Amino acid sequence: MNTKKEEIKTSQRADWDDPSVSSAARDDAPRVIVQKQVLHVEGPYKLESGGSLPELDVIYETFGKLNAKKDNAILVIHALTGDSHCSGYYTYYPNEKAGWWSSLIGPGKAIDTNKYFVICTNNLGGCSNDVYPPVEGAPSHTTNPASIDPRTGRRYNMNFPDYTFGDCVEVQKLVVDHFGIKRLLAVVGGSMGGMMTLEWARRYPDNLSCIVAVATSAHLSPQGIAFSEVERQSIRLDPKWRGGDYPDNDPPAGGLGVARMIAHITYLSQQSMRAKFGRRKQQKNGKVTDQFEVESYLEHQGNSFVKRFDANSYLYITEALDDYDLIREGETLDDAVANFKCLTLMLSFRTDWLFPTKEASEVAEALRRQGKIVEFNEVDSEKGHDGFLIDFDKYAGLVSCFLERVYLNYNRMI
Amino acid sequence: MNTKKEEIKTSQRADWDDPSVSSAARDDAPRVIVQKQVLHVEGPYKLESGGSLPELDVIYETFGKLNAKKDNAILVIHALTGDSHCSGYYTYYPNEKAGWWSSLIGPGKAIDTNKYFVICTNNLGGCSNDVYPPVEGAPSHTTNPASIDPRTGRRYNMNFPDYTFGDCVEVQKLVVDHFGIKRLLAVVGGSMGGMMTLEWARRYPDNLSCIVAVATSAHLSPQGIAFSEVERQSIRLDPKWRGGDYPDNDPPAGGLGVARMIAHITYLSQQSMRAKFGRRKQQKNGKVTDQFEVESYLEHQGNSFVKRFDANSYLYITEALDDYDLIREGETLDDAVANFKCLTLMLSFRTDWLFPTKEASEVAEALRRQGKIVEFNEVDSEKGHDGFLIDFDKYAGLVSCFLERVYLNYNRMI
Repeated sequence: MNTKKEEIKTSQRADWDDPSVSSAARDDAPRVIVQKQVLHVEGPYKLESGGSLPELDVIYETFGKLNAKKDNAILVIHALTGDSHCSGYYTYYPNEKAGWWSSLIGPGKAIDTNKYFVICTNNLGGCSNDVYPPVEGAPSHTTNPASIDPRTGRRYNMNFPDYTFGDCVEVQKLVVDHFGIKRLLAVVGGSMGGMMTLEWARRYPDNLSCIVAVATSAHLSPQGIAFSEVERQSIRLDPKWRGGDYPDNDPPAGGLGVARMIAHITYLSQQSMRAKFGRRKQQKNGKVTDQFEVESYLEHQGNSFVKRFDANSYLYITEALDDYDLIREGETLDDAVANFKCLTLMLSFRTDWLFPTKEASEVAEALRRQGKIVEFNEVDSEKGHDGFLIDFDKYAGLVSCFLERVYLNYNRMI
Repeated sequence: MNTKKEEIKTSQRADWDDPSVSSAARDDAPRVIVQKQVLHVEGPYKLESGGSLPELDVIYETFGKLNAKKDNAILVIHALTGDSHCSGYYTYYPNEKAGWWSSLIGPGKAIDTNKYFVICTNNLGGCSNDVYPPVEGAPSHTTNPASIDPRTGRRYNMNFPDYTFGDCVEVQKLVVDHFGIKRLLAVVGGSMGGMMTLEWARRYPDNLSCIVAVATSAHLSPQGIAFSEVERQSIRLDPKWRGGDYPDNDPPAGGLGVARMIAHITYLSQQSMRAKFGRRKQQKNGKVTDQFEVESYLEHQGNSFVKRFDANSYLYITEALDDYDLIREGETLDDAVANFKCLTLMLSFRTDWLFPTKEASEVAEALRRQGKIVEFNEVDSEKGHDGFLIDFDKYAGLVSCFLERVYLNYNRMI
């Protein structure tokens, strides 16, 4: 999909891996270097849809050390287009971006990897074309529609079986079990990852002490579903999509780019767009162009996205997102949370209109009605849904204190 | 574009025009029958962009009677994809839909055509493929990118000159002048039409007594621009768009449909979507399908739209919308309204997030600071931006009283 870039990067690898590279070219904090790991599961691996996979590779990363009692483990779950790289760096390459939640997770951070052992898996069906460092002899992301079907030697594409967020949770649990962890200290996730934390609490009430559910709700709103649908239609509209059978080197980049642009609008708030772009026009070579800055920004977002994400994976993952509901058919929200045994921290973001405060607080209220211990906070952020990936300083303290209280009182509570 | 349907309709025309058609097949209210009219202007007709049109046809409709003093005329301006048919019917065809603001405009309605003379033009660059009744020997909509360029005998398509909302106002004024109206009692418009009412007030302070600016603001927000841009990208993504040179009978319906679906999401509120669709799945032949009701609804909206609207026109009109700003470069909002001489009624809708109350009230506040008489109301509607086309009962009274006060005090005020 992005062969040329990969080549360039590969030729520079020697430098990136070398800690002796001039420190001027690096940021000052010492880097935590992590590696992707793979859990391979022989199939057939059955899914809730009735379909199955001939084999399963789960990519994950860990941060910090699991203690002898195995009671300091935290599972972190990524959002729609995220990956296992929630913190740290892969290399010493000076321009490498840190993992997506590095400001929250790391030594001395809110999720303190000096104290806690953090596991983050790439979700089933997820996908992220990070090219460094390739895991020797293994795929760089968890089995998804862009993976090779061993039965055919070709990509699954639209032959990938349907899967649910329940399946994603089961796949995460494989990794947790692999470490012999009976009870997680916490499951932490934002957005789609937050939905999965709720699903964990429902599915495995005896296997976790608390959840931190960030910028999320029990299910996607009809407005959210509507956006998912127009995003999928943009992909399918691109003639290069070819019913899903596109070659690796000629994906429906146009359609996927537009899908990402649409999605990106829903991640920002009116306020943040006004502050960031206003109605200013883009300048090029000192001249004002016809293009608004906001258009140029979104186009850039679309273009970067297509380099790291697969269109079919996007179709599957958004279908699973739309379909997920913590509330099963015939249930009320109260029924859905009645068997939770964990402590809950829920955080919403004031200007988030994709997962509005109202929807998060409905979950918190149901938990309270059912006699559970729940802490709910609306973070005073102007950044819309993206607030949970930007305004760390406004909620890191809440997460840190919550986890510490649960950890220190752990033995007394169970 | 929709040849088949047109044929069917044409073959039924005899019936529709016949007032003796069984009354059981009709609604009970007597129908106000109107006809499209054309004002033809020989070119070259110059535009603000510096471009020009070789000729100009302006489609308009009128309702009620212009009095001898010519002081009872109201110009109504339509929204993005509207047309001149703001009230009444063209025929007696039982299933014909009434004009888009019929609940507000008509005999005895808030804009009472027993008292007032209403003019509504199809905007320059606008387009609406209403097939009945074709105006003999004339186009059914104002000159736009889908019109035939007399110099080539082919559609303008992307060779249509750029135009501004200022140009649209000038074209509307041609019709007003055509009737010899020196001073309009009111200019009334919603959404994009509301922006043009503000432009009228700025451009022709001595030629109108009041404006009614509904669900609008001084300019589109960056979020609005962002949505416009992804809508345009959807159209251009469709291989049938062909750089704008598509034949009449094979337009980029897929791309235009997705564009409309995206736009339609912005017209509804979270609340109205929850109330209307929830997370229910669509039923077909008594069976639950995989499709959510909201997806099916939007798809239907997209499909109907492509039958009545042209893709290139949509590109041009949304560009003009994004670019419009009541506030000229280097000005403040106060500067922009300093020369208004009219009375103003501004209405916003509580759950409208495309033209939020905040943005409308900023205009009202600037008017007040500049010593103008302005009445501002937030209509308590759950219907989002669409509220101005649905919740008539919640604001018709405000419009009616406001107009009446201006009309009765007309002579004293000027």
